[in-house]
Amino acid sequence: MANIAKKVSWSSRGDDRGERAPLLNGAEDGKHSNRQVPDRPYRLQKITYVGLVCFSQITQDIVKSRLKEIPHNEKLLSLKYESLDYDNSENQLFLEEERRMSHMGFRCLEIRRWVICGLIGFLTGLIACLIDIAVEELAGYKYSAVKQNIEKFTEFGGLSISLILWAALNSAFVMVGAIAVAFFEPIAAGSGIPQIKCYLNGVKIPCVVRLKTLAIKVFGVICSVAGGLAVGKEGPMIHSGAVVAAGVSQGRSTSLKKDFKIFEYFRRDTEKRDFVSAGAAAGVSAAFGAPVGGVLFSLEEGASFWNQMLTWRIFFASMISTFTLNFFLSIYHGKPGELSSPGLINFGRFDSDTVQYNLYEIPLFIIMGALGGMLGALFNVINYWLTIFRIRYIHRPCLQVMEAMLVAAVTATVAFAMIYFSNDCQPLGQDSTEEYPLQLFCADGEYNSMATAFFNTPERSVRSLFHNPPGSYNPLTLGVFTLVYFVLAVWTYGLTVSAGVFIPSLLIGAAWGRLFGILLSTITSSQSIWADPGKYALIGAAAQLGGIVRMTLSLTVIMVEATGNVTYGFPIMLVLMTAKIVGDYFIEGLYDIHIKLQSVPFLHWDAPPTSHWLTAREVMSSPVTCFNRVERVGRIVDVLSNTSTNHNGFPVVAHTTENEEPGKICGLILRSQLIVLLKHKVFVERASSRLSQRRLQLKDFRDAYPRFPPIQSIHVSQDERECMMDLNEFMNPTPYTVPQETSLPRVFKLFRALGLRHLVVVDDENRVVGLVTRKDLARYHLGKDGLEELQLAQT
Amino acid sequence: MANIAKKVSWSSRGDDRGERAPLLNGAEDGKHSNRQVPDRPYRLQKITYVGLVCFSQITQDIVKSRLKEIPHNEKLLSLKYESLDYDNSENQLFLEEERRMSHMGFRCLEIRRWVICGLIGFLTGLIACLIDIAVEELAGYKYSAVKQNIEKFTEFGGLSISLILWAALNSAFVMVGAIAVAFFEPIAAGSGIPQIKCYLNGVKIPCVVRLKTLAIKVFGVICSVAGGLAVGKEGPMIHSGAVVAAGVSQGRSTSLKKDFKIFEYFRRDTEKRDFVSAGAAAGVSAAFGAPVGGVLFSLEEGASFWNQMLTWRIFFASMISTFTLNFFLSIYHGKPGELSSPGLINFGRFDSDTVQYNLYEIPLFIIMGALGGMLGALFNVINYWLTIFRIRYIHRPCLQVMEAMLVAAVTATVAFAMIYFSNDCQPLGQDSTEEYPLQLFCADGEYNSMATAFFNTPERSVRSLFHNPPGSYNPLTLGVFTLVYFVLAVWTYGLTVSAGVFIPSLLIGAAWGRLFGILLSTITSSQSIWADPGKYALIGAAAQLGGIVRMTLSLTVIMVEATGNVTYGFPIMLVLMTAKIVGDYFIEGLYDIHIKLQSVPFLHWDAPPTSHWLTAREVMSSPVTCFNRVERVGRIVDVLSNTSTNHNGFPVVAHTTENEEPGKICGLILRSQLIVLLKHKVFVERASSRLSQRRLQLKDFRDAYPRFPPIQSIHVSQDERECMMDLNEFMNPTPYTVPQETSLPRVFKLFRALGLRHLVVVDDENRVVGLVTRKDLARYHLGKDGLEELQLAQT
Repeated sequence: MANIAKKVSWSSRGDDRGERAPLLNGAEDGKHSNRQVPDRPYRLQKITYVGLVCFSQITQDIVKSRLKEIPHNEKLLSLKYESLDYDNSENQLFLEEERRMSHMGFRCLEIRRWVICGLIGFLTGLIACLIDIAVEELAGYKYSAVKQNIEKFTEFGGLSISLILWAALNSAFVMVGAIAVAFFEPIAAGSGIPQIKCYLNGVKIPCVVRLKTLAIKVFGVICSVAGGLAVGKEGPMIHSGAVVAAGVSQGRSTSLKKDFKIFEYFRRDTEKRDFVSAGAAAGVSAAFGAPVGGVLFSLEEGASFWNQMLTWRIFFASMISTFTLNFFLSIYHGKPGELSSPGLINFGRFDSDTVQYNLYEIPLFIIMGALGGMLGALFNVINYWLTIFRIRYIHRPCLQVMEAMLVAAVTATVAFAMIYFSNDCQPLGQDSTEEYPLQLFCADGEYNSMATAFFNTPERSVRSLFHNPPGSYNPLTLGVFTLVYFVLAVWTYGLTVSAGVFIPSLLIGAAWGRLFGILLSTITSSQSIWADPGKYALIGAAAQLGGIVRMTLSLTVIMVEATGNVTYGFPIMLVLMTAKIVGDYFIEGLYDIHIKLQSVPFLHWDAPPTSHWLTAREVMSSPVTCFNRVERVGRIVDVLSNTSTNHNGFPVVAHTTENEEPGKICGLILRSQLIVLLKHKVFVERASSRLSQRRLQLKDFRDAYPRFPPIQSIHVSQDERECMMDLNEFMNPTPYTVPQETSLPRVFKLFRALGLRHLVVVDDENRVVGLVTRKDLARYHLGKDGLEELQLAQT
Repeated sequence: MANIAKKVSWSSRGDDRGERAPLLNGAEDGKHSNRQVPDRPYRLQKITYVGLVCFSQITQDIVKSRLKEIPHNEKLLSLKYESLDYDNSENQLFLEEERRMSHMGFRCLEIRRWVICGLIGFLTGLIACLIDIAVEELAGYKYSAVKQNIEKFTEFGGLSISLILWAALNSAFVMVGAIAVAFFEPIAAGSGIPQIKCYLNGVKIPCVVRLKTLAIKVFGVICSVAGGLAVGKEGPMIHSGAVVAAGVSQGRSTSLKKDFKIFEYFRRDTEKRDFVSAGAAAGVSAAFGAPVGGVLFSLEEGASFWNQMLTWRIFFASMISTFTLNFFLSIYHGKPGELSSPGLINFGRFDSDTVQYNLYEIPLFIIMGALGGMLGALFNVINYWLTIFRIRYIHRPCLQVMEAMLVAAVTATVAFAMIYFSNDCQPLGQDSTEEYPLQLFCADGEYNSMATAFFNTPERSVRSLFHNPPGSYNPLTLGVFTLVYFVLAVWTYGLTVSAGVFIPSLLIGAAWGRLFGILLSTITSSQSIWADPGKYALIGAAAQLGGIVRMTLSLTVIMVEATGNVTYGFPIMLVLMTAKIVGDYFIEGLYDIHIKLQSVPFLHWDAPPTSHWLTAREVMSSPVTCFNRVERVGRIVDVLSNTSTNHNGFPVVAHTTENEEPGKICGLILRSQLIVLLKHKVFVERASSRLSQRRLQLKDFRDAYPRFPPIQSIHVSQDERECMMDLNEFMNPTPYTVPQETSLPRVFKLFRALGLRHLVVVDDENRVVGLVTRKDLARYHLGKDGLEELQLAQT
């Protein structure tokens, strides 16, 4: 049964220490029951907020009733996730190192950063290339086998054998992929974009950037795309890029137990996160051939602090990545040096001559955007309930594999049935983009039009919908296809296979967009103006994708770069904006839903607007466990071992006594630092003998990063417990602090802008009174009827 | 003579209160002579820095010797510039207002922000349209007049009359423009990009976002472009967009004395700066038809805190702006609704068929980038010395106008001479882009090729260089043209006319780029591969522009959007990066040079890397003037009136006495707030009578924003001087503070990330010991031999 719980959530194997434990046990007991209500008279003016005190009771009731209904829901905030620390611990060791470094040294570091980004781009491009070629080969093999079989049996009858062959092939591919994911690395399931969003936001999702995850991810995505599921190979590229970045920038792999002893300076959260941004951007860039889109994706999803040099490096990684992919694919396609396929998906060339839109088409685009928003919201709602169903009932790996196989078989069957019953025959042109045109029951020289959409990788289908000349599809084919593919795509997203949702969304949208275009030209019956249904297919694709994922600026740029033409920039932006506004009215974006369902303490860009009446005093957790500047080893071990108070950062104060009087703050020390100190037995009593030993260096902390050993693995003898530890040299002497009266938005802004992990709250004597961590801020969010507070839970 | 000083610098009419006065008089006396050298032993380890103490002596000597040489130089930091405050003063009034606002209220605000951005985009687009049409008409008139004249005199002889006509017309246009700029609004000179960079960085340049500036700017740019100077109309669009944004977002114009009573909520630095970012982006977007480039420009140059919603709004403004321009220009061109000219400059269509580059061209691109970097650096060096010459000798408005006229006349003469002596005739094609082909001494049906480059607006010349078929120019023509135009462009930038440097840079680059391409095809003599010199013209243009302005990501995107084709993205990025690296080796970018020459306290992205050995204690200014929570009016008036201590922010402390013991910090109050309080006589003694009066509201502060009256204009009677003022309600009770030991990079990061204006330094008892402002941070910069400290000066 332990295994079940493991598979349910992303975070399965990491150490589950939260920034701090909940103050009360159990998820139902809100922390604020013992909150002080501040006595400010002006509070009582006509303020139209849902009062915190009564409000908390109400929500608790709601939550309780909901909790019985479904085990995981979005009203909980999990405490098991750790935060990344974007703030350097500027302790003496760090300052000494920085001061020792010359101007030249910093320049070398900078060059090394560029080299790493180049490597990230190169490797990400290579991986994209590998995926593309593998999928191409496997799918090619599959389609020609099935095609031969179909052609054979079309004449003799007995096409059910072809169907069985097709379904069996698909299921086999998917089974292999699903087994790898479900049994070896569940975190590799899905597109990985929610996980990377969380990582860039500052939440550490265990195992998410490990080499093993990358291997399973790549293998899984090849299987699921080759298996004919309604999925794309683009989303996983983003995750792959991020893993590559995390690996390369650290100059070692813990999985392979190999330390190259390079890039040791970058072994801390700050630097690693910067590189992961670059990796994610390189992934987007390779997936869509959109380097600028990649940069914007990273910035939109992650980086809170914009830095020119960092952005330029990210851009460099993106450029290298798309260039590498382009270069190797050109060799694969037998035209070395011809750089014409910059991404995994290629929307094909929109010729500048035909690329035009007119002023009076803009209202139509807005209508399509609204439609996309609504369809996207429908997609998300259905997927939301499906995900909850999966969390509740399908949590055994074998069940998950079976579900994936079932979906693969159903997809093949449905596709086959649609092709079989369709009688939409089209003449086989010379310059057709179809690689496997199916004649089936069509006359010689014609092919089955429905088969173009199904009997193809989804990327090719999208391109056909964009570019095939008017009249290639009949409306009924498109309508039925949209409906069927929508259902399949909803069902597929969330399966335990690694796959993305971009391409299916684009495909659905392109189908109904093209349908829209065809209907329009039928209604107006003026062929000249609405001549190009491909244009509407593009707009529809943007609308549908925007309605599902709700990305904005970056998606516009990605679409523009993928079409290779900036003319459609304005309509695409309009459509994406409309889709977002309409969709947000109903439900959140797909990634946000999945993040919420995992109860991740995700920090949005700003504090909720109506949160000005909350202050640090109400938000913080207190009392806080503090250490003295020179602390007894026994107390440190006890505090670290105490599982009920799993703090990760401890204010260091001057002269605290055992009584409850808080001391003046003089620094902040992290659990990880204390662990390293304990491991190296850096005790005052041993200082004399230490002189002969090597002095503890920053390197010792870096070597232990990021998987610091648990406290239980460190043996401290009874004698050593009585020793003292001098924290002065290792603590950060200047942590950021705020007074108790600071409003939540102000705390939030400081916390978010600097990427903090701990923020110490002090009184006007500089005495520690509380600590604000990510969970304290992520807890408040804007619900339908005002500010809501999420419940904290250990799961 | 006062007038002279006024014209020398940007900041002429604003109130000259710095954040704080220098502690010692005179620029030569460094502040650090009385600095405490901290007694940390580890400082003395082998740290390879130029010691501060001895270093300051050395630089002072250098500065002294330099000072004699030139009056304005980049080793000074002016105290006359004020900062913008990106941090909200969260006092009780503010909090009450925020708390009173419902969720719906915040939503309305958000909608209003979108409306404003739409308006900004629309108006910016309209202005761009106005400039374009006016230039087109005036230049058209001029060229046809001169052309007729030339044609007339070519046969009869006596072309010197044509030359005089041409030169006179040019000088007349330029004279009008220069007079407007020099006599009415000197801040409107140049492209305005350095000023907007400063504004977005957080420095208030007086008059920079006023309506009058906009009017002069627009008028001036029309005159100077029509006057045939080697300038572009694109740079000023960025400034224009920023002014529009600052005006629209405030819902009033002080120049017109008109208050529309709308958008009052946005009357503070935080909001205004956000909108100005949007305006600048809209300007770029209208200038180049590059909405994404506009967004990236704003982000690259300004916004330190990236916010998703803000970015999306900026993008919206950019889109609307390019759309508006496109729409109105389509009407002007007689093809309403055909949206084909998205920007002021149109690079023309690069056909996807011919747009190809090959792997082995990449080294060539890198060479071109290096060449561009060197030529750019040469441009900047010459312009730097020219600017210093101008500052020293050409500071009277009439002299400035005369110089501008001289340049205009010389430009015409040189152009005429070049055309006259050139014998490069080309056949007149059917689809020629030349609007005014000059036959001159060519055979019938041919035209003078040199005239295409000179007898045209620079935008058209750039397009010709990009797109004219191979063989349109002979190498000598291009070589001579490059040289001549380079000299003219260097001389022109910095004249007292409003004009941009983008187009001349592109033109120079396109010319030598095309030359490069032609030479290449001659050398290799394989026409097929190097067939398209237009490609090299584009790369050369990018290299030259990059070498001069050193913009990176945004320039790549702008170039890509302006060419309408993403294929060249990678080479353009490579070239820009090479140009930047090579150029930075010699001298800074053109805008940065001009910012430095104005001694603006500009904050870069990060603190200098080798500044870890400086702490807040050394950086801060102290002692700080503090106020009590309840302070005597007389003291406040005295402090505010004291011109030698021109502080703008005052820590409020508990129980400070006249002795030097600092008090515990309880808040921060701004000069502007105190002024409003004094104006409304908000004294404790009047509280009883105030009950009958209206209570002071946030509105009163907003109405006075941004031009708070000087303290001298507020009459305070002798009786009133004895009254007390209660600052509790108005001060920001939770200012950001740092301990004295905080390292400079850490202080810098906090300051920059949050856009602060004042940062209070406290000791471990929370007592105020100092104040860090922009100048304290901007003072340290990385010179050739390590960290340098700039001198503070009042000018």
